[in-house]
Amino acid sequence: MPKLDLGAIEPTNATGYPEPHDKAVAGRWYRRLAPVAGLTDFGASHVVLKPGAWSSQRHWHDGEDEFLVMIAGEATLVEDDGPTTLRAGDCAAFPKGVRNGHHLRNDSAEDCVFLVVGGGERTGGGYSDIDMLFTADNRYTRKDGTPYGSDRV
Amino acid sequence: MPKLDLGAIEPTNATGYPEPHDKAVAGRWYRRLAPVAGLTDFGASHVVLKPGAWSSQRHWHDGEDEFLVMIAGEATLVEDDGPTTLRAGDCAAFPKGVRNGHHLRNDSAEDCVFLVVGGGERTGGGYSDIDMLFTADNRYTRKDGTPYGSDRV
Repeated sequence: MPKLDLGAIEPTNATGYPEPHDKAVAGRWYRRLAPVAGLTDFGASHVVLKPGAWSSQRHWHDGEDEFLVMIAGEATLVEDDGPTTLRAGDCAAFPKGVRNGHHLRNDSAEDCVFLVVGGGERTGGGYSDIDMLFTADNRYTRKDGTPYGSDRV
Repeated sequence: MPKLDLGAIEPTNATGYPEPHDKAVAGRWYRRLAPVAGLTDFGASHVVLKPGAWSSQRHWHDGEDEFLVMIAGEATLVEDDGPTTLRAGDCAAFPKGVRNGHHLRNDSAEDCVFLVVGGGERTGGGYSDIDMLFTADNRYTRKDGTPYGSDRV
Protein backbone atom coordinates (compact mmCIF):
# COMPACT_ATOMS: atom_id res chain seq x y z
CA MET A 1 0.00 0.00 0.00
CA PRO A 2 1.67 3.22 -1.13
CA LYS A 3 -0.14 5.35 1.50
CA LEU A 4 1.98 5.25 4.62
CA ASP A 5 0.32 4.37 7.91
CA LEU A 6 2.08 7.01 9.97
CA GLY A 7 0.32 5.86 13.13
CA ALA A 8 1.99 2.46 12.78
CA ILE A 9 5.49 3.95 12.67
CA GLU A 10 6.85 4.63 16.14
CA PRO A 11 8.25 8.17 16.40
CA THR A 12 11.58 8.72 18.13
CA ASN A 13 13.31 11.71 19.65
CA ALA A 14 16.70 10.02 19.58
CA THR A 15 19.72 12.24 18.98
CA GLY A 16 23.46 11.75 19.00
CA TYR A 17 24.12 15.39 19.86
CA PRO A 18 26.50 15.68 22.80
CA GLU A 19 25.34 17.53 25.89
CA PRO A 20 24.24 20.28 26.18
CA HIS A 21 23.35 20.51 22.49
CA ASP A 22 20.85 17.66 22.81
CA LYS A 23 18.45 19.60 25.02
CA ALA A 24 16.98 21.75 22.25
CA VAL A 25 15.84 18.73 20.23
CA ALA A 26 14.27 16.71 23.06
CA GLY A 27 10.83 17.74 21.78
CA ARG A 28 11.55 16.76 18.17
CA TRP A 29 9.67 13.55 17.37
CA TYR A 30 10.47 12.08 13.99
CA ARG A 31 9.66 9.12 11.81
CA ARG A 32 12.15 8.05 9.14
CA LEU A 33 9.94 7.10 6.24
CA ALA A 34 12.31 5.97 3.51
CA PRO A 35 13.40 2.69 5.13
CA VAL A 36 9.79 1.79 5.94
CA ALA A 37 8.62 2.68 2.44
CA GLY A 38 11.47 1.00 0.58
CA LEU A 39 12.94 4.23 -0.81
CA THR A 40 16.69 4.48 -1.36
CA ASP A 41 17.14 7.47 -3.71
CA PHE A 42 16.54 10.02 -0.95
CA GLY A 43 15.60 10.17 2.71
CA ALA A 44 12.29 11.50 4.01
CA SER A 45 11.31 12.22 7.60
CA HIS A 46 8.01 13.22 9.15
CA VAL A 47 8.75 15.52 12.07
CA VAL A 48 6.59 16.84 14.91
CA LEU A 49 8.06 19.68 16.95
CA LYS A 50 6.56 20.19 20.37
CA PRO A 51 6.26 23.80 21.58
CA GLY A 52 9.77 25.11 22.24
CA ALA A 53 11.54 22.33 20.34
CA TRP A 54 14.09 22.84 17.59
CA SER A 55 14.42 20.67 14.48
CA SER A 56 18.20 20.55 14.97
CA GLN A 57 21.05 22.80 15.91
CA ARG A 58 21.43 25.38 13.15
CA HIS A 59 23.36 23.45 10.49
CA TRP A 60 24.26 22.96 6.84
CA HIS A 61 25.21 19.93 4.76
CA ASP A 62 28.28 19.96 2.54
CA GLY A 63 27.05 17.18 0.26
CA GLU A 64 23.29 16.82 0.68
CA ASP A 65 20.43 18.92 -0.65
CA GLU A 66 17.60 19.37 1.82
CA PHE A 67 13.99 20.37 1.23
CA LEU A 68 11.04 20.74 3.58
CA VAL A 69 7.34 21.42 3.41
CA MET A 70 5.24 22.48 6.38
CA ILE A 71 2.21 20.30 6.97
CA ALA A 72 0.57 21.86 10.03
CA GLY A 73 1.13 24.54 12.62
CA GLU A 74 3.71 27.27 12.57
CA ALA A 75 7.51 27.20 12.78
CA THR A 76 10.25 29.80 12.76
CA LEU A 77 12.95 29.15 10.17
CA VAL A 78 16.19 30.69 11.38
CA GLU A 79 19.22 31.29 9.18
CA ASP A 80 21.98 33.90 8.94
CA ASP A 81 19.58 36.50 7.57
CA GLY A 82 17.15 36.11 10.47
CA PRO A 83 13.81 34.46 11.19
CA THR A 84 11.00 33.60 8.76
CA THR A 85 7.63 32.16 9.75
CA LEU A 86 6.55 28.98 7.97
CA ARG A 87 2.95 27.79 7.84
CA ALA A 88 1.17 24.83 6.25
CA GLY A 89 2.05 24.61 2.58
CA ASP A 90 5.21 26.69 2.83
CA CYS A 91 8.32 25.14 1.29
CA ALA A 92 12.00 25.81 1.97
CA ALA A 93 15.12 24.53 0.24
CA PHE A 94 18.72 24.26 1.40
CA PRO A 95 21.17 23.44 -1.37
CA LYS A 96 24.25 21.49 -0.30
CA GLY A 97 27.42 23.41 0.35
CA VAL A 98 25.74 26.68 1.30
CA ARG A 99 27.21 27.39 4.73
CA ASN A 100 24.23 29.40 5.93
CA GLY A 101 22.99 27.22 8.75
CA HIS A 102 19.27 26.71 9.21
CA HIS A 103 16.84 25.13 11.58
CA LEU A 104 13.19 25.35 12.59
CA ARG A 105 12.07 26.41 16.03
CA ASN A 106 8.57 25.90 17.31
CA ASP A 107 7.93 29.24 19.01
CA SER A 108 4.19 28.59 19.10
CA ALA A 109 2.01 27.00 21.76
CA GLU A 110 0.91 24.11 19.52
CA ASP A 111 2.71 21.23 17.83
CA CYS A 112 3.94 21.88 14.32
CA VAL A 113 4.53 19.24 11.67
CA PHE A 114 6.77 19.17 8.63
CA LEU A 115 8.15 16.75 6.09
CA VAL A 116 11.84 16.94 5.20
CA VAL A 117 13.69 15.28 2.34
CA GLY A 118 17.43 14.87 1.95
CA GLY A 119 19.53 13.45 -0.86
CA GLY A 120 23.11 13.32 -2.05
CA GLU A 121 26.31 12.26 -0.34
CA ARG A 122 27.00 12.17 3.38
CA THR A 123 30.16 14.24 3.23
CA GLY A 124 29.65 16.09 6.49
CA GLY A 125 28.63 19.58 7.44
CA GLY A 126 28.64 22.06 10.25
CA TYR A 127 26.79 24.11 12.81
CA SER A 128 26.51 27.89 12.77
CA ASP A 129 26.02 28.71 16.44
CA ILE A 130 28.03 26.07 18.30
CA ASP A 131 31.54 24.60 18.13
CA MET A 132 30.57 21.44 16.26
CA LEU A 133 30.92 19.70 12.91
CA PHE A 134 29.61 16.40 11.65
CA THR A 135 31.86 14.19 9.56
CA ALA A 136 31.36 11.94 6.55
CA ASP A 137 31.55 8.94 8.91
CA ASN A 138 28.83 10.41 11.15
CA ARG A 139 30.92 11.53 14.09
CA TYR A 140 30.53 14.82 15.94
CA THR A 141 33.69 16.86 16.45
CA ARG A 142 34.68 20.34 17.55
CA LYS A 143 35.73 22.66 14.73
CA ASP A 144 39.38 21.88 15.53
CA GLY A 145 38.65 18.17 14.90
CA THR A 146 38.52 17.04 18.54
CA PRO A 147 35.91 14.27 18.79
CA TYR A 148 32.91 14.69 21.07
CA GLY A 149 32.72 10.92 21.38
CA SER A 150 29.18 10.64 20.06
CA ASP A 151 27.79 9.69 16.68
CA ARG A 152 24.91 10.83 14.49
CA VAL A 153 21.90 8.57 14.76
CA MET B 1 16.16 33.04 1.16
CA PRO B 2 15.46 29.35 1.80
CA LYS B 3 11.68 29.88 1.98
CA LEU B 4 10.38 29.59 -1.55
CA ASP B 5 8.11 32.33 -2.87
CA LEU B 6 5.65 30.01 -4.57
CA GLY B 7 3.61 32.96 -5.84
CA ALA B 8 6.62 34.17 -7.82
CA ILE B 9 6.99 30.84 -9.66
CA GLU B 10 4.67 30.60 -12.65
CA PRO B 11 2.74 27.31 -12.64
CA THR B 12 2.39 25.36 -15.87
CA ASN B 13 0.04 22.65 -17.07
CA ALA B 14 2.39 21.63 -19.89
CA THR B 15 2.45 17.96 -20.83
CA GLY B 16 4.09 15.93 -23.55
CA TYR B 17 1.40 13.23 -23.39
CA PRO B 18 0.07 12.44 -26.85
CA GLU B 19 -3.63 12.88 -27.51
CA PRO B 20 -5.99 11.77 -26.07
CA HIS B 21 -3.93 10.98 -22.95
CA ASP B 22 -3.24 14.69 -22.37
CA LYS B 23 -6.84 15.59 -21.57
CA ALA B 24 -6.85 14.14 -18.07
CA VAL B 25 -3.94 16.32 -16.93
CA ALA B 26 -5.12 19.65 -18.38
CA GLY B 27 -6.14 20.72 -14.87
CA ARG B 28 -2.80 19.78 -13.29
CA TRP B 29 -0.87 22.96 -12.52
CA TYR B 30 2.67 22.39 -11.31
CA ARG B 31 5.75 24.29 -10.27
CA ARG B 32 9.12 22.57 -10.54
CA LEU B 33 10.93 23.73 -7.43
CA ALA B 34 14.36 22.10 -7.60
CA PRO B 35 15.74 24.22 -10.47
CA VAL B 36 14.49 27.42 -8.83
CA ALA B 37 15.88 26.42 -5.44
CA GLY B 38 19.25 25.17 -6.70
CA LEU B 39 18.63 21.53 -5.75
CA THR B 40 20.18 18.77 -7.84
CA ASP B 41 20.03 15.65 -5.64
CA PHE B 42 16.31 15.14 -6.25
CA GLY B 43 13.38 16.80 -7.97
CA ALA B 44 10.46 18.43 -6.15
CA SER B 45 7.22 19.71 -7.62
CA HIS B 46 4.35 21.63 -6.08
CA VAL B 47 1.15 20.48 -7.77
CA VAL B 48 -2.40 21.85 -7.74
CA LEU B 49 -5.09 19.58 -9.17
CA LYS B 50 -8.27 21.30 -10.25
CA PRO B 51 -11.50 19.35 -9.69
CA GLY B 52 -11.56 16.41 -12.09
CA ALA B 53 -7.86 16.60 -12.93
CA TRP B 54 -5.39 13.72 -12.69
CA SER B 55 -1.79 14.03 -11.56
CA SER B 56 -0.69 11.84 -14.50
CA GLN B 57 -1.75 8.76 -16.32
CA ARG B 58 -1.39 5.82 -13.93
CA HIS B 59 2.35 5.07 -14.12
CA TRP B 60 5.45 3.66 -12.50
CA HIS B 61 9.16 4.51 -12.73
CA ASP B 62 11.75 1.79 -13.35
CA GLY B 63 14.64 3.80 -11.89
CA GLU B 64 13.25 6.59 -9.72
CA ASP B 65 11.79 6.52 -6.23
CA GLU B 66 8.81 8.83 -5.79
CA PHE B 67 7.27 10.26 -2.62
CA LEU B 68 4.38 12.64 -2.04
CA VAL B 69 2.76 14.48 0.80
CA MET B 70 -0.69 16.04 0.60
CA ILE B 71 -0.78 19.70 1.58
CA ALA B 72 -4.44 20.64 1.17
CA GLY B 73 -7.73 19.24 -0.06
CA GLU B 74 -8.51 15.66 -0.91
CA ALA B 75 -7.27 13.35 -3.64
CA THR B 76 -7.93 9.78 -4.66
CA LEU B 77 -4.80 7.68 -4.99
CA VAL B 78 -5.45 4.91 -7.51
CA GLU B 79 -3.26 1.84 -7.92
CA ASP B 80 -3.80 -1.84 -8.81
CA ASP B 81 -5.39 -2.54 -5.44
CA GLY B 82 -7.97 0.22 -5.82
CA PRO B 83 -8.60 3.73 -4.55
CA THR B 84 -7.38 5.36 -1.31
CA THR B 85 -8.34 8.84 -0.14
CA LEU B 86 -5.47 11.18 0.75
CA ARG B 87 -5.91 14.28 2.91
CA ALA B 88 -3.56 16.98 4.22
CA GLY B 89 -0.60 15.38 5.96
CA ASP B 90 -0.98 11.99 4.31
CA CYS B 91 2.17 10.58 2.72
CA ALA B 92 2.58 7.98 -0.02
CA ALA B 93 5.69 6.32 -1.40
CA PHE B 94 6.36 4.56 -4.70
CA PRO B 95 9.65 2.66 -4.81
CA LYS B 96 11.26 2.40 -8.23
CA GLY B 97 10.71 -0.74 -10.21
CA VAL B 98 7.38 -1.66 -8.64
CA ARG B 99 5.10 -1.99 -11.66
CA ASN B 100 1.94 -1.11 -9.79
CA GLY B 101 0.98 2.12 -11.52
CA HIS B 102 -0.34 5.00 -9.45
CA HIS B 103 -1.80 8.43 -9.86
CA LEU B 104 -3.92 10.94 -7.96
CA ARG B 105 -7.35 12.03 -9.14
CA ASN B 106 -9.14 15.02 -7.77
CA ASP B 107 -12.65 13.66 -7.39
CA SER B 108 -13.63 16.53 -5.10
CA ALA B 109 -15.20 19.90 -5.89
CA GLU B 110 -12.21 21.91 -4.59
CA ASP B 111 -8.59 22.23 -5.63
CA CYS B 112 -6.18 19.85 -3.94
CA VAL B 113 -2.47 20.46 -3.44
CA PHE B 114 0.43 18.09 -2.98
CA LEU B 115 4.22 18.07 -3.00
CA VAL B 116 6.00 15.30 -4.88
CA VAL B 117 9.68 14.35 -4.78
CA GLY B 118 11.54 12.12 -7.21
CA GLY B 119 15.10 10.87 -7.25
CA GLY B 120 17.26 8.28 -8.93
CA GLU B 121 17.93 7.50 -12.57
CA ARG B 122 15.72 8.32 -15.51
CA THR B 123 15.62 4.81 -16.91
CA GLY B 124 12.04 4.90 -18.13
CA GLY B 125 8.78 3.43 -16.94
CA GLY B 126 5.28 2.60 -18.02
CA TYR B 127 1.57 3.17 -17.77
CA SER B 128 -0.92 0.70 -16.33
CA ASP B 129 -4.12 1.62 -18.16
CA ILE B 130 -2.99 2.75 -21.61
CA ASP B 131 -0.68 1.48 -24.35
CA MET B 132 2.26 3.70 -23.47
CA LEU B 133 5.79 3.62 -22.06
CA PHE B 134 8.31 6.36 -21.40
CA THR B 135 11.94 5.79 -22.27
CA ALA B 136 15.25 6.73 -20.67
CA ASP B 137 15.61 9.46 -23.30
CA ASN B 138 12.18 10.89 -22.45
CA ARG B 139 10.20 9.71 -25.46
CA TYR B 140 6.71 8.25 -25.35
CA THR B 141 6.18 4.97 -27.19
CA ARG B 142 3.56 2.27 -27.46
CA LYS B 143 4.37 -0.93 -25.59
CA ASP B 144 5.63 -2.46 -28.86
CA GLY B 145 8.16 0.39 -29.12
CA THR B 146 6.37 2.43 -31.80
CA PRO B 147 7.03 6.10 -31.06
CA TYR B 148 4.16 8.47 -30.40
CA GLY B 149 6.30 11.33 -31.70
CA SER B 150 6.10 13.37 -28.50
CA ASP B 151 8.51 13.84 -25.64
CA ARG B 152 8.24 14.17 -21.87
CA VAL B 153 8.44 17.76 -20.72
